[in-house]
Amino acid sequence: MARKSSLLKQTLATILVLLVVYALLNTFLSPANSSSSSSSSSSPKSMSKLETTFPFTYANSASVENGFSRENANNFPGKSVLKVYLYELPKRFTHGVIEHHSIARGRQPADDVALLQYPGHQHMAEWYMYKDLTRPDSERVGSPVIRVSDPDEADLFYVPFFSSLSLIVNTARPAVSGPDQGRVMYSDEENQEALVDWLEEQEYWKRKNGRDHVIVAQDPNALYRVIDKVKNSVLLVSDFGRLRSDQASLIKDVIVPYSHRINTYTGDVGVENRKTLLFFMGARYRKEGGKIRDLLFQLLENEEDVIVRHGTQSRENRRAASQGMHTSKFCLNPADSASALKPGFVVSMLRGLTTERIMEYQRELKEVKHYFQYGELNGTVNEIWRQVSQKLPLIKLMINRDKRLVKRELTEPDCSCLCTNQTGILTSL
Amino acid sequence: MARKSSLLKQTLATILVLLVVYALLNTFLSPANSSSSSSSSSSPKSMSKLETTFPFTYANSASVENGFSRENANNFPGKSVLKVYLYELPKRFTHGVIEHHSIARGRQPADDVALLQYPGHQHMAEWYMYKDLTRPDSERVGSPVIRVSDPDEADLFYVPFFSSLSLIVNTARPAVSGPDQGRVMYSDEENQEALVDWLEEQEYWKRKNGRDHVIVAQDPNALYRVIDKVKNSVLLVSDFGRLRSDQASLIKDVIVPYSHRINTYTGDVGVENRKTLLFFMGARYRKEGGKIRDLLFQLLENEEDVIVRHGTQSRENRRAASQGMHTSKFCLNPADSASALKPGFVVSMLRGLTTERIMEYQRELKEVKHYFQYGELNGTVNEIWRQVSQKLPLIKLMINRDKRLVKRELTEPDCSCLCTNQTGILTSL
Repeated sequence: MARKSSLLKQTLATILVLLVVYALLNTFLSPANSSSSSSSSSSPKSMSKLETTFPFTYANSASVENGFSRENANNFPGKSVLKVYLYELPKRFTHGVIEHHSIARGRQPADDVALLQYPGHQHMAEWYMYKDLTRPDSERVGSPVIRVSDPDEADLFYVPFFSSLSLIVNTARPAVSGPDQGRVMYSDEENQEALVDWLEEQEYWKRKNGRDHVIVAQDPNALYRVIDKVKNSVLLVSDFGRLRSDQASLIKDVIVPYSHRINTYTGDVGVENRKTLLFFMGARYRKEGGKIRDLLFQLLENEEDVIVRHGTQSRENRRAASQGMHTSKFCLNPADSASALKPGFVVSMLRGLTTERIMEYQRELKEVKHYFQYGELNGTVNEIWRQVSQKLPLIKLMINRDKRLVKRELTEPDCSCLCTNQTGILTSL
Repeated sequence: MARKSSLLKQTLATILVLLVVYALLNTFLSPANSSSSSSSSSSPKSMSKLETTFPFTYANSASVENGFSRENANNFPGKSVLKVYLYELPKRFTHGVIEHHSIARGRQPADDVALLQYPGHQHMAEWYMYKDLTRPDSERVGSPVIRVSDPDEADLFYVPFFSSLSLIVNTARPAVSGPDQGRVMYSDEENQEALVDWLEEQEYWKRKNGRDHVIVAQDPNALYRVIDKVKNSVLLVSDFGRLRSDQASLIKDVIVPYSHRINTYTGDVGVENRKTLLFFMGARYRKEGGKIRDLLFQLLENEEDVIVRHGTQSRENRRAASQGMHTSKFCLNPADSASALKPGFVVSMLRGLTTERIMEYQRELKEVKHYFQYGELNGTVNEIWRQVSQKLPLIKLMINRDKRLVKRELTEPDCSCLCTNQTGILTSL
């Protein structure tokens, strides 16, 4: 009984950390409102970003500080800085996509596409990754990778196709049924296929079947048409909701955070200016009605110190959401749907927390916040590269296995797996 | 056609490298003759050690040398030296096993079991791993891990049970059918279960479900009775022939080399003293008759410059095999059974190689030889720890996933996988 109660406490504490993380860091507007069609966050196959993205413990462990002081560190291969080759892709895959996105929104073609600004949306990892690698080395503070100009020196190859932006180029444009009236039309699918055609011509792609390549496909639908042709590569994705287990996995790929659409809270730790207990703003009805969001609205909208509001993507709503999140103690992102739907459960749990504990959560969040900020110099992009770097031993292993001489005629794929608990450990809620 | 011929050449060259590696480094006596029952190397599920053990390219890559000179290296988590806690196991799991092995062979019980010498056999990784961690830090030259005395500081926990020796304690002892005549009897299975009972009492085992523990099970049958209870740990194994994919995999575990039962060649590169083209010595008939060995004997035994000899484990035979391998250009370890059985194929391929090429192979081997030598100060043990160290990010990820709050009721294990080519790439032979 004592053990069960301790488990329960631990579970609640962890849920709350997630809630606070969400309050401070995550995007607030439902993907259903964005122009791309992201996967439902309550889909059983999709994973919460916070569960899987960055193993902070590793980056923060004491061994990091102590590494260099050991006399034997010289022989440890993992210590090295990895070398990345940035492909100079044809313009159609990078700034050309920005241009089409701009034209589709009624703007004039640019004189110099390289000067076009990448438009804000929630799948901007591709932009920050690209920007980072095109900066001079001296400005790439704290990066675990360096850019090399000679592909023969590279450990990894980065393919900077703006795949998520490509997906939404045409979303603002009405379907053209008649003859096109002189506009430059754009096809995401054509561009995806052109990218694969281009890659398959590259010596360094062919050499290792793309295994040492890194490709960003942050929108769950990005690259959907060619995913089977690039699945050997390390993919930077939002989740695995729409990818089969032979296309992507936690082992091979990296889950990257959304870029924020609201302002990050930069103030001090404290609850004086956070009068609301719980805040949420986003689409009340998701795709096909949604799974639990409307039920949560019904449960929570009449609670005195809780604000749950329907809101779609707009500058005005983003401002209101920033304001709402920055003045609330918690935001809503329940990890266990069944418990969250029990009347009174969430609010009584949150009301039971002391101010001291809430401020402790806030301090902890402050420490890890930079991992979720793409704009920071030593922020998300560096952490993504750290995660990718850690895949290198496995990438090399897989490349070696591809070279094997043994002729195999298997009826199933030859997979090496890492499995977790089938039923979950903490089920005491 | 030109492409096919080039592929063929490449394939042959690679086969030869494997043959030469085998000639210089590998064990020669069939596991069928050893007292334990190892898995057949021609089993489709087992993998050649040379394919999978050590990704040399990584350890040798230029990035290793350059790592420290970069100003941003300080922020790369992989660089750190990992901390390992060596469990002080009850004596029954370590020196007690040596004592029982000794008593079972007619020797008197020792006054001080700690002074007993670990007996030579081909699954001695457990001994070398243990010896390494019990040495003073100053003597652990080039190790990528340091031993810590405080378990709270540890990244990984090493469980030094002599599981392979335990398996063969009783093989020299006739089955006892009547009452035991005063001898101290030993049961490997009992000891396996006692180990798990002991582990399951340990705070650090329970804390992370054993995921941050490293356990050696080099003999394919070692720990067979309890493998399901230790499968979360990093296992050091010979192959995956007898392990299911949810028990062990290339992702989670490390394949370790056999310890040599013959003397390593220490002479110079050259072919003057290598008059034999091809040498093999081992059991002609393996378990259930074997798959291709007898056929190879028939094909090769009448070739003039080839020596294939039947031989069982004995000091005399080990000496003969050392002599035979050290005076032969190649040893036999074909990667593709079907081609090797084509009359004349192997010998004509080998006879076609120039002296220059053979010496090139020898030089390449000399460079990597130390990875296969347990006795060397910076040899196999350090490389095993390097491989284990590279698993840490995944270990942390899996530990984090075990903590998830989402209640799952899955009908299948939740596995993340890395898959390779289903049919093999080089099938031109």
